Amino acid sequence: MNCSSFGIGLAGLGTVGSGVVLALERNAGLISARTGGRVKLEIARVLVRDLTKLRPVALPDECLTTSWRELVEDPAVDIVVELIGGTTDAFEIVAAALKAGKPVVTGNKALLAERGVELFALSKQHDAPIHFEAAVAGGIPIIKTVQESFIGNRIHSIVGIINGTSNYILERMTSAGLEFPAALAEAQALGYAEADPALDVNGWDAAHKAILLATLAYGFPIDPAKIHVAGIEQVRPIDIEFATRLGYVVKLLAVVREHADGAVELRVQPSFIAQSHILASVHGVFNAVAVHGDAAGESLFYGRGAGQDPTASSVVADLVEAGRSLAQANGHRGFLPYREAGELLPVEETETAYYVRFDVTDRPGVIAEVARVLADAGIGISGTHSPVKPDQPDADFLDMVFLLHTCSFGRLQETLREIESLNCINSAPVVFRIEKL
Amino acid sequence: MNCSSFGIGLAGLGTVGSGVVLALERNAGLISARTGGRVKLEIARVLVRDLTKLRPVALPDECLTTSWRELVEDPAVDIVVELIGGTTDAFEIVAAALKAGKPVVTGNKALLAERGVELFALSKQHDAPIHFEAAVAGGIPIIKTVQESFIGNRIHSIVGIINGTSNYILERMTSAGLEFPAALAEAQALGYAEADPALDVNGWDAAHKAILLATLAYGFPIDPAKIHVAGIEQVRPIDIEFATRLGYVVKLLAVVREHADGAVELRVQPSFIAQSHILASVHGVFNAVAVHGDAAGESLFYGRGAGQDPTASSVVADLVEAGRSLAQANGHRGFLPYREAGELLPVEETETAYYVRFDVTDRPGVIAEVARVLADAGIGISGTHSPVKPDQPDADFLDMVFLLHTCSFGRLQETLREIESLNCINSAPVVFRIEKL
Repeated sequence: MNCSSFGIGLAGLGTVGSGVVLALERNAGLISARTGGRVKLEIARVLVRDLTKLRPVALPDECLTTSWRELVEDPAVDIVVELIGGTTDAFEIVAAALKAGKPVVTGNKALLAERGVELFALSKQHDAPIHFEAAVAGGIPIIKTVQESFIGNRIHSIVGIINGTSNYILERMTSAGLEFPAALAEAQALGYAEADPALDVNGWDAAHKAILLATLAYGFPIDPAKIHVAGIEQVRPIDIEFATRLGYVVKLLAVVREHADGAVELRVQPSFIAQSHILASVHGVFNAVAVHGDAAGESLFYGRGAGQDPTASSVVADLVEAGRSLAQANGHRGFLPYREAGELLPVEETETAYYVRFDVTDRPGVIAEVARVLADAGIGISGTHSPVKPDQPDADFLDMVFLLHTCSFGRLQETLREIESLNCINSAPVVFRIEKL
Repeated sequence: MNCSSFGIGLAGLGTVGSGVVLALERNAGLISARTGGRVKLEIARVLVRDLTKLRPVALPDECLTTSWRELVEDPAVDIVVELIGGTTDAFEIVAAALKAGKPVVTGNKALLAERGVELFALSKQHDAPIHFEAAVAGGIPIIKTVQESFIGNRIHSIVGIINGTSNYILERMTSAGLEFPAALAEAQALGYAEADPALDVNGWDAAHKAILLATLAYGFPIDPAKIHVAGIEQVRPIDIEFATRLGYVVKLLAVVREHADGAVELRVQPSFIAQSHILASVHGVFNAVAVHGDAAGESLFYGRGAGQDPTASSVVADLVEAGRSLAQANGHRGFLPYREAGELLPVEETETAYYVRFDVTDRPGVIAEVARVLADAGIGISGTHSPVKPDQPDADFLDMVFLLHTCSFGRLQETLREIESLNCINSAPVVFRIEKL
């Protein structure tokens, strides 16, 4: 077995950077097992602005540097992770890494959308890949999906809610009737919007992401100056109110679509979508991207679009990918199974809430009898229901439904056996689990 | 540039097999461009049962064989695709291919769930990967997502609607109040259920898929005999009715969950889920899988779970992956951009329906004037709305909303400029697109 260890040069130890360090620590064993022991990832060097600042993660002092050149040039650094943001220093770091033949992992959508042409050319020239799953929709693997899983598809369209801040603000304007400034202030107070929320609310954050998705789908560079972008600053409660009455919901949508003649439509704006459409159910700071391919048909990918852990999840996946590329001699996936054995939970020990329907002979005391057996077993009742039959007020048989609190399936079965033995119960009860998802 | 051409040995030319041939033909140029010209895939040999049968795809006669040994042993075959189904011949073919060191692509969930332990051991021994994206949820890339994108996540749970036939039947029982046999007959008539629907309706098709997902997430072999599986044959309309009244919907759910002590829960059964949960919106033959990882948080992946094209989409993605593994010297992704230029559609030429709100001075003829300008421009009106203000029956100013048929944004803007010049219009109209998704 080839076991390769790769040194990571991490530029930026902010929210996402710290998340990457924590995720690598927490799940190191898991990652090693899942790659068949082939890829080991270690933080070799970290670029910070201030060496003396207190940090949420423990790193040896000699690991830290304030010089990005030192980081990129360190021979212990095999892969460079750029998480400092912006398009100036970040550009220098990524360009230098590529020129040194080091693969780059970045979450910087502005950088790739604005200066991707130069960077991807360097990537090609120096045969060093750029991985950027974290740049679009945080923890949702939409880059890999479009780039790899849909590789055999002509992509008809990609429509997404890819700015959580705007989605949150529009939702609060809808549910609470807030004006835009009030909803924005609320989002800022909750940490959902940056101190400078311009790129979020003016549509450009979504536009940068849409440019990356369109470049993946259609393969050509897209000039940000040529696309139509409108944000949510001008949205007013009155229009949201009308939308609601008319059966719509207002969402900031990025729309990418290929026309029959090959022309690509790319625009970002607040739009109405039908309340019944699945994208209308994307609430709060969640993101979702609907992809329509000629073979795969309609698909939707939904999840957390930002935040420390979701974004770190994508960075770590890219790091493993970069490690695998470097360890090419054994480039394919780990083998399954990768553990010899594991424990399976017996169904009796699985726990959910339940719906139970009994076919009972109606006589005084039936509910009390059933309820007593349940109580003796320590199973709580959250509701009971038995249909009233207006035309048969004195019917002898009826269906009685109990909604039961969460308990083990084993205890439920035991208890139901006891209830079945009551002489008012006519047949085996019908059981459904009520899933808490 | 290394350009490698790989020969495919296709075992099975049924629905999905034909779809693979068609997708490779249709999108050959796209696949080549997207892999940076590195991977070219060609059908080298096809295993069929009957050489004389008419086929939906044109293949040279010398390509066809009725001997699986001939197919696997053919030196022109670099990658073997198994799409014949079942667990006997399919096992022989896959085992022989792996022993010959040839990567395998398969959509056979029963084979991998029932005999995966043997096959993955062969895969390891002969260093030949098994790709099986098509085995779970058709066109949804859930295998790659769990295996690669979530590689840095401890997976808390995977909950899925992964049998479209059952989902369709349950939905018809819900919407039309049908009994199970009638809904099944309808699904069969529409081609949504096999002539022998046993594995679909008894829960085992979903269970096989859940076993594969759990093996990916937790890495150990799972004995099908040890899991709890119930199908939908026993579901009755009365319980669906109660579910509806209580705010739930009945879905055949596969539930995989890791407990704090490391034990894995795996079960399949019809369950109640809240009508407000996003999984409740998975209709008809669609599939969806909700994955909860410690870093990525909650995600959902939704799309077509079966059918010729969606399943072929996953087979083709796996073929490219297998080709890349074989061409390892340049194992990483193609570069971006892969085209020098492409056409961007000007926003004026983009078309949607619209919501337009005017702030008007109310006097007789206002609606008629606006409507006339729209009619002259050839823009259809699907509805108008202006709020009645019961307390101000003679208000001078009001908001007037028009819902407009699909037209180009350019024509809309032109027409709105003309409307703005009417002296009953007080300010620039508010426009929202109504997206048809």
